[in-house]
Amino acid sequence: MNRAEVEQFLQQQKQRLEESLPHYIARLNAPGTIKRAMSYSLEAGGKRIRPLLLFATLHSFGKEPDIGLPVACAIEMIHTYSLIHDDLPSMDNDDLRRGKPTNHKVFGEAMAILAGDGLLTYAFQVIAEMSDARIVPATKIRLIEELAKAAGPEGMVAGQVADIEGEGKQLSLEQLEYIHRHKTGKMLQYSVLAGALLADAKDEQLHHLHTFASHLGLAFQIRDDILDIEGSEEKIGKRVGSDIENKKVTYPSLLTIAGAKEKLSFHIAEAKRYLQKAEINDSVLSYICDLVATRDH
Amino acid sequence: MNRAEVEQFLQQQKQRLEESLPHYIARLNAPGTIKRAMSYSLEAGGKRIRPLLLFATLHSFGKEPDIGLPVACAIEMIHTYSLIHDDLPSMDNDDLRRGKPTNHKVFGEAMAILAGDGLLTYAFQVIAEMSDARIVPATKIRLIEELAKAAGPEGMVAGQVADIEGEGKQLSLEQLEYIHRHKTGKMLQYSVLAGALLADAKDEQLHHLHTFASHLGLAFQIRDDILDIEGSEEKIGKRVGSDIENKKVTYPSLLTIAGAKEKLSFHIAEAKRYLQKAEINDSVLSYICDLVATRDH
Repeated sequence: MNRAEVEQFLQQQKQRLEESLPHYIARLNAPGTIKRAMSYSLEAGGKRIRPLLLFATLHSFGKEPDIGLPVACAIEMIHTYSLIHDDLPSMDNDDLRRGKPTNHKVFGEAMAILAGDGLLTYAFQVIAEMSDARIVPATKIRLIEELAKAAGPEGMVAGQVADIEGEGKQLSLEQLEYIHRHKTGKMLQYSVLAGALLADAKDEQLHHLHTFASHLGLAFQIRDDILDIEGSEEKIGKRVGSDIENKKVTYPSLLTIAGAKEKLSFHIAEAKRYLQKAEINDSVLSYICDLVATRDH
Repeated sequence: MNRAEVEQFLQQQKQRLEESLPHYIARLNAPGTIKRAMSYSLEAGGKRIRPLLLFATLHSFGKEPDIGLPVACAIEMIHTYSLIHDDLPSMDNDDLRRGKPTNHKVFGEAMAILAGDGLLTYAFQVIAEMSDARIVPATKIRLIEELAKAAGPEGMVAGQVADIEGEGKQLSLEQLEYIHRHKTGKMLQYSVLAGALLADAKDEQLHHLHTFASHLGLAFQIRDDILDIEGSEEKIGKRVGSDIENKKVTYPSLLTIAGAKEKLSFHIAEAKRYLQKAEINDSVLSYICDLVATRDH
């Protein structure tokens, strides 16, 4: 695939995902309020980087991306739940997300907590209910198990706990990396893993893709920190400079901006190196690496 | 089994469950705070009625209860997460639960939300990771699917939403029943269903046990409402009379105390009638019906 074809592929997959998400909510036999609260954040847009990683991984193995659609929706539900809960007054207390009022600002705190709980629980239902004959039961169970690990107390939740406990403290680079490896890294890794599992990847390929995704995840976070200094508020959809204002420890604060950019380049290069080792058609995944390195929102 | 044997059976299963729960938390590779917050509520005791229903159902099919231990632990994790979130200031704002300070009173709101999220997610991991050769993959997937349905936006979450939206309103009996059928009923039903699925029950038996559990769930809730009027604070571990004080719509408020007691008897009788139809060894489940009807905490 050339660059234009890759962009078209990603655009198509994003559209497909965004067309599917409303159906999953619509079919729920549940009170209107909770469905609206779940939809509000799920359909608020965003980069959809996690589902796109899954589709790109499937493509890299020559598989039809549609086999991964339910898992991609489940991943986006988990990601959305984490944003809703992170934004709550007792957590980050954010009023805006992607340029729109946060969930609890619109629906109130109680409903926002429940919308998060609902999305988290429903994600597992969506995977368990997949009726695709191409997916054997053992793969389905592995997808559920790994999703729970990536999202739960050993994964994303651990990262959020460490983030909260690190607030106002001078963290080491190691502590900062623990937070990012868990808070954002685990779900990014899961997105690649899920694609590879659905494509029946060999153990060695799983291993290389795991390391690929680990570097990509850190690169993603470093770019986030840089954008909070150099980015445009309009493009990001939230205030810039908040890290410095909140005295948050970031890659630039530990390494200087130049040091952070160097580290970003290092992780992108490592990601690409492990991508090569996996011996797959890496055109789309490699493009995503460049996207992560240079994104402006 | 005679009454003494049934009591011994239930006591043994409860003990087994309570010995297992700490191991599930201990093995987690997660920050100490979140493990302590999860344990605090998970190991706070309680009646353990849901796990006991699962073990009793297995027994009624002549199965060893140990086959259900991981699912029983997962059920108790989900139940505990729901209590932690329900107690939050933006929900019921409760300071005490089972005579102890609520989770957010000890660990703070952010950690309580995360402990709930962690328990909810981990519950699915625990089922997905079961390595018992007696449980085929299709059963495992069904157990996960039904758990997500019972706990999620079509189940327990729907009940909590309806409960919040009904606050301060004059509800009809139908609306009150919607709340209870979802908020407590769905997880009680799941506990019986999970036991029956693990015992390879026939479809007809599943059907009768589903109706049995539905009546038992309502009976459980009616007894709860009666206890808030007639119960002893010391035995319940929380304040009595709070429903009247908060002008909460309950079975006694809609039907009078005598009417509520009559309805309780009706649902217990119906539960027992459907239990008979299932053609199983009903000694333990029948005892639990009597326990629910007469419990003082």
